[in-house]
Amino acid sequence: MKLEDKMELTHFDEHGNARMVDVSKKDITSRSACAVGSILVNKEIVEKIEHSDMKKGDVLGVARIAGIMGVKKTSDLIPLCHPLMINKVNIDFEIDKVNCLIYAYCAVKCNGKTGVEMEALTGVNICLLTIYDMCKAVSKDMEIKNVHLVSKSGGKSGDFVWKE
Amino acid sequence: MKLEDKMELTHFDEHGNARMVDVSKKDITSRSACAVGSILVNKEIVEKIEHSDMKKGDVLGVARIAGIMGVKKTSDLIPLCHPLMINKVNIDFEIDKVNCLIYAYCAVKCNGKTGVEMEALTGVNICLLTIYDMCKAVSKDMEIKNVHLVSKSGGKSGDFVWKE
Amino acid sequence: MKLEDKMELTHFDEHGNARMVDVSKKDITSRSACAVGSILVNKEIVEKIEHSDMKKGDVLGVARIAGIMGVKKTSDLIPLCHPLMINKVNIDFEIDKVNCLIYAYCAVKCNGKTGVEMEALTGVNICLLTIYDMCKAVSKDMEIKNVHLVSKSGGKSGDFVWKE
Amino acid sequence: MKLEDKMELTHFDEHGNARMVDVSKKDITSRSACAVGSILVNKEIVEKIEHSDMKKGDVLGVARIAGIMGVKKTSDLIPLCHPLMINKVNIDFEIDKVNCLIYAYCAVKCNGKTGVEMEALTGVNICLLTIYDMCKAVSKDMEIKNVHLVSKSGGKSGDFVWKE
Amino acid sequence: MKLEDKMELTHFDEHGNARMVDVSKKDITSRSACAVGSILVNKEIVEKIEHSDMKKGDVLGVARIAGIMGVKKTSDLIPLCHPLMINKVNIDFEIDKVNCLIYAYCAVKCNGKTGVEMEALTGVNICLLTIYDMCKAVSKDMEIKNVHLVSKSGGKSGDFVWKE
Amino acid sequence: MKLEDKMELTHFDEHGNARMVDVSKKDITSRSACAVGSILVNKEIVEKIEHSDMKKGDVLGVARIAGIMGVKKTSDLIPLCHPLMINKVNIDFEIDKVNCLIYAYCAVKCNGKTGVEMEALTGVNICLLTIYDMCKAVSKDMEIKNVHLVSKSGGKSGDFVWKE
Repeated sequence: MKLEDKMELTHFDEHGNARMVDVSKKDITSRSACAVGSILVNKEIVEKIEHSDMKKGDVLGVARIAGIMGVKKTSDLIPLCHPLMINKVNIDFEIDKVNCLIYAYCAVKCNGKTGVEMEALTGVNICLLTIYDMCKAVSKDMEIKNVHLVSKSGGKSGDFVWKE
Repeated sequence: MKLEDKMELTHFDEHGNARMVDVSKKDITSRSACAVGSILVNKEIVEKIEHSDMKKGDVLGVARIAGIMGVKKTSDLIPLCHPLMINKVNIDFEIDKVNCLIYAYCAVKCNGKTGVEMEALTGVNICLLTIYDMCKAVSKDMEIKNVHLVSKSGGKSGDFVWKE
Repeated sequence: MKLEDKMELTHFDEHGNARMVDVSKKDITSRSACAVGSILVNKEIVEKIEHSDMKKGDVLGVARIAGIMGVKKTSDLIPLCHPLMINKVNIDFEIDKVNCLIYAYCAVKCNGKTGVEMEALTGVNICLLTIYDMCKAVSKDMEIKNVHLVSKSGGKSGDFVWKE
Repeated sequence: MKLEDKMELTHFDEHGNARMVDVSKKDITSRSACAVGSILVNKEIVEKIEHSDMKKGDVLGVARIAGIMGVKKTSDLIPLCHPLMINKVNIDFEIDKVNCLIYAYCAVKCNGKTGVEMEALTGVNICLLTIYDMCKAVSKDMEIKNVHLVSKSGGKSGDFVWKE
Repeated sequence: MKLEDKMELTHFDEHGNARMVDVSKKDITSRSACAVGSILVNKEIVEKIEHSDMKKGDVLGVARIAGIMGVKKTSDLIPLCHPLMINKVNIDFEIDKVNCLIYAYCAVKCNGKTGVEMEALTGVNICLLTIYDMCKAVSKDMEIKNVHLVSKSGGKSGDFVWKE
Repeated sequence: MKLEDKMELTHFDEHGNARMVDVSKKDITSRSACAVGSILVNKEIVEKIEHSDMKKGDVLGVARIAGIMGVKKTSDLIPLCHPLMINKVNIDFEIDKVNCLIYAYCAVKCNGKTGVEMEALTGVNICLLTIYDMCKAVSKDMEIKNVHLVSKSGGKSGDFVWKE
């Protein structure tokens, strides 16, 4: 892909009509992507989530399942996404107790003609929305923050690493 | 609902098992919610989106449809959400050219036994993910930021307004 | 609804933005709609369908199930459709042997704030597509023809009957 | 495929039971299909659609997104369709002002073991239903007409071109 | 409902055509149902599940989420089921260590025109299938057994209690 | 796969977190699986089903379509299942009149990195649930029994045959 091509909104044709980009000629290669995002909660919620377990309610366990299932629905949710055969989904959480932030990481792999960036980002978003849903009875002052790609590899456009 | 009840993670029973909360006894009332969120893009993308029209590719028009359809899928995406008969969905965008931020607002109404907060938040997230998807060929340095509830009304837990 | 209101494309707001129309204030009333459409096939297919039975393959039986399930997916398929609690779906077929036309009728009822016209039309379309799919190994010279509303009742906009 | 095979309703086994045909032994080849269909509207609607833009409401833009998303749902809608990894979807419209007809074309590509005829036809149908939905407040005297395959290529059964 | 009515396959009309039964005239009443089923596993799996926790892998926690989400998909899975607004879903498990059986119970409530028997049964089935999926790397000699209704209440056909 | 690997719950990582297993390195091979299950009904239902035809209502025909469509939804229903491109689905029934049992068999094939055991089992379950739904107006004393894998082939873990 030449530089000038990369500058275009490839999801529209020369008349400005939305389209699902033709990837027929692209090779099937191994691709992976990882995305991250966080949700700001209050101290009470951070503590409930940190001490959650199967006795008290496993908030992050539910969010993880929602995220994995959300990854599989990406092409159903994002209009111009190609369907993909997902090979792997991993979701991890990190709790930043000081700043009351719950981080969700989503790593996705496939063998396909397009990348899995949207799948990883969708997984993170559905995780965070699910945490929101399960904690909203405690407080509605939560905020989803800073969802972005961490890295991707594979495909013509090459590798990408997020620079903080 | 008493104060102490509100403090609980209502999506889990006394043994810590996830459940879809029983709303049988709740009244069907008129409910509304509005959520907002933004995506940080680069100058080039802001300009493309600002000058987009049906000739050049209507990024926000596609994102709006994705958001509206996403609202209708909320209970399919968020494990413990109740299905709801949506009465209205409105999605608006605001472009902050100086800070390279595209804001998405999603307002939802229903008559139901539970609120539409999750629907409004899901609509915003799907909108922003769709903008990401359509602009990622230009740059992958985008970031979804600050998705939160703006306000809600209706239901026992009363009205809510976000305080900046 | 006044005449001039009926003349507008109500699915767009005053800025031309697509929206799911607000039906909060509308009453829940009993509504029904019936739609029809046909598929033109060749003589061989008409005969196979006419003589089809559980021994030889029940084309119309499969199409009927697809149509009923399609009715339930309407608000998932048509972006600005409201979800509705369907009360009834009936699908009937008529074979016009002389003209090689298979007619599909779909009648839908609900109690809701909006009508079931789109549900009835979607049911007809999915029926006809399913017939196409099952007969396309015999011939691809089929054509879906003349899908339209037959009648509707209920709701503010009143009753409608198609005039041939 | 021999002639006599082509004459059979391959979606049923020798006992007349519906089945999803075994394509295990078929090669994965490049396949494409294009379908067309039209909707007859009144003069007022034709004009609204023709002059539609992002200010007044982009009917065809919404229909295009619905059509693309509909293509991806084909195997979920048509009972005996195989799931396929879609490589490309393009939807175009043509307005025949004299005859008050809006034409929708849908072109689909995949690499797969079965063709994308049903995907192209489903895309056209969902487009036309979406136009219907957005214009039905103006008039319900619309009619979906003449949905058929334009051409297909790839696969054992060879190429096909519709003869008017 | 008279006895002779109860004897008919109500999902077919007088010509034997499948239909979604007309419930327009039925009242919206409070309805509940509970179903149960079990899966026979080997000793090793029973132990893994019994001692499972968030450290070792919470098999039943994942199965519970799958079951709750499955309940919400019932009308999408069972062709002639009416869509329903679910008010509550509860899923419980019981481990019979001696007989190597894992029991899943699913209790569902709604206010609607039809009952939630199919929803409760679907929830149990999806739970058990999910347990199967997560344990099949250990052994494939598992068996889903004895899925049936435990009780239902509400609606014209009255209450039902399973007699062992 | 070594014996000790087979003993692990592979759907969880070393911290006990659920994950979709990484199959990137696995080869795409031809895989098939067959599952069976039965539903115990009363004499009256057995007779209605046995004599059912297109005149009286084809219970098994409807159940077959539901089962085939259910197979295609497997990865949407079972949280940690990989999506797969299904090549074939066949569903057969057997009526054991003496014991009032209806047996459903589901055979599935794909070329993929994981097997189709879950698809075959899901197909059987949806079939039996659909029979239940269509016969529950006659009697609710039905019971789904003994759903298990009959055989599978392909993949590293080798072939499997159920031993009665």
